Amino acid sequence: RAYALVEPLHPADVADLFELLDAEQRPLLAAAITDLMSGDVIAELNDHVRDDMIEALAPEAVAEIVEQLETDDAVQLIEDLEPAEQAAILAEMEPEDRAAIESALAYPEETAGRLMSREFVAVPEHLTVGDLIDYLRDANAVHLPTEFWEVFVVDPAHHPVGTCQLSWILRTPRNIALSDVMKRDQTLIPVTMDQEEVGNMFQKYALISAAVVDESGRLVGQMTVDDVVHIISEEAGEDVLLLSGAGDGDINEPIRDAYTARVRWLIANLGTAVVASAIIAMFGAAIEELVALAVLMPIVASIGGNAGTQTMAVTVRAIAMNQLTRANTRRMLWREMRVALLNGATVAVLIGLAVAVLFTTQLGGVIAAAMMINIVVAGLAGVVVPVLFERLDQDPAVASSVFVTMITDSMGFLAFLGLAVAAGLGG
Amino acid sequence: RAYALVEPLHPADVADLFELLDAEQRPLLAAAITDLMSGDVIAELNDHVRDDMIEALAPEAVAEIVEQLETDDAVQLIEDLEPAEQAAILAEMEPEDRAAIESALAYPEETAGRLMSREFVAVPEHLTVGDLIDYLRDANAVHLPTEFWEVFVVDPAHHPVGTCQLSWILRTPRNIALSDVMKRDQTLIPVTMDQEEVGNMFQKYALISAAVVDESGRLVGQMTVDDVVHIISEEAGEDVLLLSGAGDGDINEPIRDAYTARVRWLIANLGTAVVASAIIAMFGAAIEELVALAVLMPIVASIGGNAGTQTMAVTVRAIAMNQLTRANTRRMLWREMRVALLNGATVAVLIGLAVAVLFTTQLGGVIAAAMMINIVVAGLAGVVVPVLFERLDQDPAVASSVFVTMITDSMGFLAFLGLAVAAGLGG
Ligand SMILES: [Mg+2]
Ligand SMILES: [Mg+2]
Ligand SMILES: [Mg+2]
Ligand SMILES: [Mg+2]
Ligand SMILES: [Mg+2]
Ligand SMILES: [Mg+2]
Ligand SMILES: [Mg+2]
Ligand SMILES: [Mg+2]
Ligand SMILES: [Mg+2]
Ligand SMILES: [Mg+2]
Ligand SMILES: [Mg+2]
Ligand SMILES: [Mg+2]
Ligand SMILES: [Mg+2]
Repeated sequence: RAYALVEPLHPADVADLFELLDAEQRPLLAAAITDLMSGDVIAELNDHVRDDMIEALAPEAVAEIVEQLETDDAVQLIEDLEPAEQAAILAEMEPEDRAAIESALAYPEETAGRLMSREFVAVPEHLTVGDLIDYLRDANAVHLPTEFWEVFVVDPAHHPVGTCQLSWILRTPRNIALSDVMKRDQTLIPVTMDQEEVGNMFQKYALISAAVVDESGRLVGQMTVDDVVHIISEEAGEDVLLLSGAGDGDINEPIRDAYTARVRWLIANLGTAVVASAIIAMFGAAIEELVALAVLMPIVASIGGNAGTQTMAVTVRAIAMNQLTRANTRRMLWREMRVALLNGATVAVLIGLAVAVLFTTQLGGVIAAAMMINIVVAGLAGVVVPVLFERLDQDPAVASSVFVTMITDSMGFLAFLGLAVAAGLGG
Repeated sequence: RAYALVEPLHPADVADLFELLDAEQRPLLAAAITDLMSGDVIAELNDHVRDDMIEALAPEAVAEIVEQLETDDAVQLIEDLEPAEQAAILAEMEPEDRAAIESALAYPEETAGRLMSREFVAVPEHLTVGDLIDYLRDANAVHLPTEFWEVFVVDPAHHPVGTCQLSWILRTPRNIALSDVMKRDQTLIPVTMDQEEVGNMFQKYALISAAVVDESGRLVGQMTVDDVVHIISEEAGEDVLLLSGAGDGDINEPIRDAYTARVRWLIANLGTAVVASAIIAMFGAAIEELVALAVLMPIVASIGGNAGTQTMAVTVRAIAMNQLTRANTRRMLWREMRVALLNGATVAVLIGLAVAVLFTTQLGGVIAAAMMINIVVAGLAGVVVPVLFERLDQDPAVASSVFVTMITDSMGFLAFLGLAVAAGLGG
């Protein structure tokens, strides 16, 4: 019965179905629909769910699945396995496929060399459109990818010299030379380029596919947009997880991994909270004298933290999209300062009036001034902290939160309690 | 001199150059390179920067730019202008182009009908591959898009019946019927589909382009992946901005807009901070008695807030990627509870020991228990709040933060101060 229900589904939908099931039910479904469990279904599975399934299979079975796939998908399938398991699977593969996968694994994770597909169409420059079409129709002569959107034109040393979109070829008479159809300017991706940068290039230049070249400029693979959309989504989506300290943030991640990823940041935050507490402790006498200080101080810290998070999110996003560079950092900082002054003034007036009515005018003035200071400091920290991480070649989304929170918490308590004491409140 | 430097650049790079300049310098550069300011450059500009430039131009000049563009880019260019300006520009356009744009503007923002391109290739089913190639080569006969990756096959009523990737056509002999090449199963996008859903479909089914159909199932346009990558990046990236309350979060947004977007959330947060303060105020007497309570209470609130943000980020991301549905919400909640118990136990032991050493054993026990409670409550709120917003058809990224923060702050103070009083601390 399960078989009949699953049969008409797209492999991506079968994969989703597996992900929705509980971990214990997945092997049961897999057993019920064995011959629908194609390489495509496995390739579409979430990393964690897939690793679980693959670990349950014999190396020969995995090798068989891997050989059905294009190299890029095959690599994804085995890159996260234990080295011993990987070796066992590779040993079962045909030498040619194995070589392709080993060459991919030699490049670092998240680089074009690891992610590219090694199947592409490359032809010499002297062909005509008719020659090319005849070559493509002669299915036996060549090992072409199932789908492609671009034909690369290369010189005898296999350096790219131009590229033809398939639509240009289809619209051109047979007797025209390829060199008259192709565009000589093309975006070349170096094997070492980071996936985030690849994603930005595809977005910026509206690419469908792009040639990947090795250190000596030879065409060695292509990146295609169907894979790049996942990269773009992952890179754009991970910042919200990184900023919150949730690590990978995948709902299929094993609990142990989620725990270790998150508890680190909670402990880091415990450190910053202790710093803030130490500041409060310095004003213990004032609080004892005037308990309203303890009641009101978290307000200044909390709103400052929120304002800092707003600016930090904008900065991290702008850095990720290559919109914030050395050329405009000063302008961005000045812009954030002006927003902070407006926000600060608004919130300071509101809280100042409320406290003046409910407590004393003097305390209202103190909290308004502290709020203004903290929101401006938050704006400053929200730009400067991520920009500094970026300049130190660190991902600004990873640790900025801890520092910005520490600054806004500490400054919130310091400004409010310090000004209160200076104003003679609480002794 | 500027002209010579800019001339070799890709339109997307020229657009980036404009964005990096200060607002006052942009008209100067535009004047220096007028004939390089093609429609493509304008289309690539950031929304805010573009709106500024367009407002400075006469309607006829804008109409001329708009007519160079494909409908989807043309619509983007004028959709955010004032209605009067829009009408003035439309009045200057050729009736056919105007009709296309007006039909797009009739659909809501961020739907396929607004975003699709109205240029595509559709042919009847009875053609052979050779007929199709001849048709495509006969450039005068048809108004084809510059680039396309797929040929839609339609019935006489213009309903899609199948689709051919260009690579399939190129690899097939001329005499084969299109109906033998085409795939009958294809992903159809309804005109009313939201762009986030369109992005998810393209990712899931690895699409390069897809047919858009109207209410009666007729083919009216296509979405292409070069536009969808921007949508995917925007949708995945906006959650970090929405969760922080930074609104649009574009560094080119006018200051007034950034201020109004952000101050709303700061004021909302002021409200939640006041709730937390009211809870503290209930325990004023205890704090007066034992000032250590005031020193330590922000720690419990702050770590709880961080833990809640972690879970909330994971939940919001899972909802956005269609990974969290009614089928697995309970499993996700249970998973987060277990992570929270582990995190809570770790942090509670650390802070409990530190406080036991620095203050008293009893206070150490109180803060450990309060921390455990708050981290578990944070995990609960981090799942339940966004899921509830989703079920109420609200974007879970927009307002979840305010509620989760309110819960973790209030619960942090309540649990810590309440347990302290119950333990007989602070009178
Ligand atoms: Mg999936
Ligand atoms: Mg992987
Ligand atoms: Mg990266
Ligand atoms: Mg691929
Ligand atoms: Mg694929
Ligand atoms: Mg990354
Ligand atoms: Mg990143
Ligand atoms: Mg740009
Ligand atoms: Mg727009
Ligand atoms: Mg387009
Ligand atoms: Mg475009
Ligand atoms: Mg959206
Ligand atoms: Mg969204």
